[in-house]
Amino acid sequence: MTRQAKEIRSDIAWSTRDRIEVRGRSLPDEILGHFNLGDVAFLQLTGKVPTPAQSNVFNAILITLVEHGITPSAIAARMTYVGAPEALQAAVAAGLCGLGSVFVGSMEGAARMLTEALPYGSQDADLDQLAKHVMTEFDGRIIPGLGHPVHKPVDPRTPRLFQIAEENGYSGRYVTLMKKIEREAEQSSGKELPINATGAIAALCCELGFPWKIVRGFGVMARAIGLVGHILEESEHPMAIEIWQRVEDEATRHIRPEAT
Amino acid sequence: MTRQAKEIRSDIAWSTRDRIEVRGRSLPDEILGHFNLGDVAFLQLTGKVPTPAQSNVFNAILITLVEHGITPSAIAARMTYVGAPEALQAAVAAGLCGLGSVFVGSMEGAARMLTEALPYGSQDADLDQLAKHVMTEFDGRIIPGLGHPVHKPVDPRTPRLFQIAEENGYSGRYVTLMKKIEREAEQSSGKELPINATGAIAALCCELGFPWKIVRGFGVMARAIGLVGHILEESEHPMAIEIWQRVEDEATRHIRPEAT
Amino acid sequence: MTRQAKEIRSDIAWSTRDRIEVRGRSLPDEILGHFNLGDVAFLQLTGKVPTPAQSNVFNAILITLVEHGITPSAIAARMTYVGAPEALQAAVAAGLCGLGSVFVGSMEGAARMLTEALPYGSQDADLDQLAKHVMTEFDGRIIPGLGHPVHKPVDPRTPRLFQIAEENGYSGRYVTLMKKIEREAEQSSGKELPINATGAIAALCCELGFPWKIVRGFGVMARAIGLVGHILEESEHPMAIEIWQRVEDEATRHIRPEAT
Amino acid sequence: MTRQAKEIRSDIAWSTRDRIEVRGRSLPDEILGHFNLGDVAFLQLTGKVPTPAQSNVFNAILITLVEHGITPSAIAARMTYVGAPEALQAAVAAGLCGLGSVFVGSMEGAARMLTEALPYGSQDADLDQLAKHVMTEFDGRIIPGLGHPVHKPVDPRTPRLFQIAEENGYSGRYVTLMKKIEREAEQSSGKELPINATGAIAALCCELGFPWKIVRGFGVMARAIGLVGHILEESEHPMAIEIWQRVEDEATRHIRPEAT
Repeated sequence: MTRQAKEIRSDIAWSTRDRIEVRGRSLPDEILGHFNLGDVAFLQLTGKVPTPAQSNVFNAILITLVEHGITPSAIAARMTYVGAPEALQAAVAAGLCGLGSVFVGSMEGAARMLTEALPYGSQDADLDQLAKHVMTEFDGRIIPGLGHPVHKPVDPRTPRLFQIAEENGYSGRYVTLMKKIEREAEQSSGKELPINATGAIAALCCELGFPWKIVRGFGVMARAIGLVGHILEESEHPMAIEIWQRVEDEATRHIRPEAT
Repeated sequence: MTRQAKEIRSDIAWSTRDRIEVRGRSLPDEILGHFNLGDVAFLQLTGKVPTPAQSNVFNAILITLVEHGITPSAIAARMTYVGAPEALQAAVAAGLCGLGSVFVGSMEGAARMLTEALPYGSQDADLDQLAKHVMTEFDGRIIPGLGHPVHKPVDPRTPRLFQIAEENGYSGRYVTLMKKIEREAEQSSGKELPINATGAIAALCCELGFPWKIVRGFGVMARAIGLVGHILEESEHPMAIEIWQRVEDEATRHIRPEAT
Repeated sequence: MTRQAKEIRSDIAWSTRDRIEVRGRSLPDEILGHFNLGDVAFLQLTGKVPTPAQSNVFNAILITLVEHGITPSAIAARMTYVGAPEALQAAVAAGLCGLGSVFVGSMEGAARMLTEALPYGSQDADLDQLAKHVMTEFDGRIIPGLGHPVHKPVDPRTPRLFQIAEENGYSGRYVTLMKKIEREAEQSSGKELPINATGAIAALCCELGFPWKIVRGFGVMARAIGLVGHILEESEHPMAIEIWQRVEDEATRHIRPEAT
Repeated sequence: MTRQAKEIRSDIAWSTRDRIEVRGRSLPDEILGHFNLGDVAFLQLTGKVPTPAQSNVFNAILITLVEHGITPSAIAARMTYVGAPEALQAAVAAGLCGLGSVFVGSMEGAARMLTEALPYGSQDADLDQLAKHVMTEFDGRIIPGLGHPVHKPVDPRTPRLFQIAEENGYSGRYVTLMKKIEREAEQSSGKELPINATGAIAALCCELGFPWKIVRGFGVMARAIGLVGHILEESEHPMAIEIWQRVEDEATRHIRPEAT
């Protein structure tokens, strides 16, 4: 049986001896010096230069995700740097590996929920009914994008993100639907379940038209920036060795004989 | 022997119930909506808001590094995504793991060379003499930041990066030193050894005062953005499976019996 | 609100100045020279030295997973090694990142299916009925551990793994249930859906009593060995650069101007 | 300019519809049930089945490296698992990323030192002179494989590894050279600089004829096993969240306003 070869093709970038183009634009002449990093991220993903409004919303999404203090991800990156300071890229990689279903990656769930409830291009949806429908679908399971262990009763990032969306004309049906889901969830559970940053970001990603499968990637690219900051601080004011020694000492105290 | 506990301390960010601060500024009120992503990267790393000139140079550095087509790093990320589409973060991590001494990480070597030759704060250096000294030190070994397998006789990113530095008042002694090293290397080898993008970026990083140990990190954070773009394209127009099947077929043809 | 500190505790290993114990045994005196690597893996995971029968089955499980030719995972590792040959560990890490839901990690799904159908310690189960129940539960979705794109009508690893289980007294209810699920699936779909290696391994892991959450880990540890083999071959007879150049050339041919 | 395609070729394994061969042997018929995991690792790397003596030495090398308690690598893996429990492979990958120049990877340096001093196949070497020569070469820099922060005056793994090598006929010139280097280093520094486990392992890897470039890989493959054990324990008796919360609380206490 002979396999039929398929095409291998990419439309992102190409280069020759004297030219480099990204998304149909000359990197040296038409991109460098003309855009900021967030706009180039938008170009890289969509093939289009963002409008000023899109630029404002997209930069805000990414910036929200850069840094959130000493997270498990930052600790993993610092622990890795201690063992392999010559491979900084591996320390960032290690830190990113944990951006899964529990942290950061939870944006994906919220974006999926919103676009499955209200697919791109759908018309005349009754958002109140959709919000109730989502509640039924989740059937008591945790609704992504709602609730926060620390930031209560309001996640301070959420109103600001919604404000930026509003000011830029991107506060549409997905933002409304997310708010209605919040209200339904709080009423049916009797608990404070504020829209958290990942929920707000998911709504804004849907407003911008991104497929839910890539939304987690915004957290990944933003956090890569944050992790380089943590590694720089670790190289100047280390904490990883101290954490390690405390943990090792405490963790094995119950089985380890006393040093003499 | 009792171990003396050391302090565990970070000055990057903190959060409480209703506040989140990054580098001494309120994330919702003073950062979101006020800066672009590149500027926040600068803030995350240095603790300072960049001046417009610093913003221009720093954004240009990062943007240069976002995308360079179908690289080994992009292939690694795509291969990983195929096996674990539910863990997009791991695909980006896999792609970043290869940004070492051969690709991207070579910026580190050039930045180290420049700051070891001309430490921050040093006065009255004779740059011609320093360039000759660097040549002696390298003693025939490859000089980082010079030469490119494809982009000859000029890497098109280099003059543009130097132009942006010039326009923003950041074309100082490190840029000059890098150019003198290029000239020395070409004269002594008789070969075309143009300053490549990583050499130009290393010089600009030194102009901005970054420690050489973190320079590789700029490539890592920028490429994280690029890799998310490749993963998005892979999810829509896949190539990884086709690459895999072609490679597997060819690689083992010499030992594999004919299928019957 | 003051947080109540919780205990940090590990029961795997400890060391002092002159002693190192793993799972309650002196590493130098009671482990080194007394066991093979597979048995130490069993000890590491369960805290117990395997019986000869357990050793045979467990070593067979791991060995099955070490190597399967030029896989996407092997290509990712080789691509990473090319960029960062000084960080071999990062190349292995990159290769492992893709062992997710599609490859290798599919063992997890099969082990979960079996233990959810027949929890450890359950009595008097009617396996025929359970197999039918599983079919109903999956409701047309792909059943993990069944079918293989290449190995048809039989995955040659499966009968051998079941034979080893049989010879060692570990062919019990989970192996039987897996076979009944295969039969049900083939009858209801009318397709060849042989138990593949991951399905057979999942059944054996259940026979040994492992929780399904860790079963993917056996593939990860075994494949780490395989990947080191690929990196060694790559260092001696490279293919990554060639793959890269072919792919880059073909992928961007449609948008790249002819070199002149 | 037309590129000349190079061959893509691998000699490790192949499979067809009904056969899977690894290193020239049928996986189902000639490998499964016939070897232990350590022996298959040897086969994967060398293409040869180990002799009983080689099997004893090689299994001992790998087993030494499986587990060393709560290391930075184990902490990184646990931190990653907390965020992405659905991607166990990424947690192992994160833990492996730190096996660089500081931990585990230091074996590479020792193996390189030994084979550069005494290349495979060299005749009639005066080992005393070679040891002195190595001291001169390192010129005060840290000699890889010597000294340990905790295990003094003897690393308990070292004499046992050397004993196993002796009993199996693999205590040759590399073991002797390593011991002579230890003696020279202790005399010239006046400090206790015992051969540590990585130094002993490096010597044994040289006795077995492995290239120094792959020696770090033995640590990587062995530690992958150890990390799966840590992740299993983390899933049953977690510590990562507690470590995170303690560290975050302490690290930002100096800048964080009191909660009210």
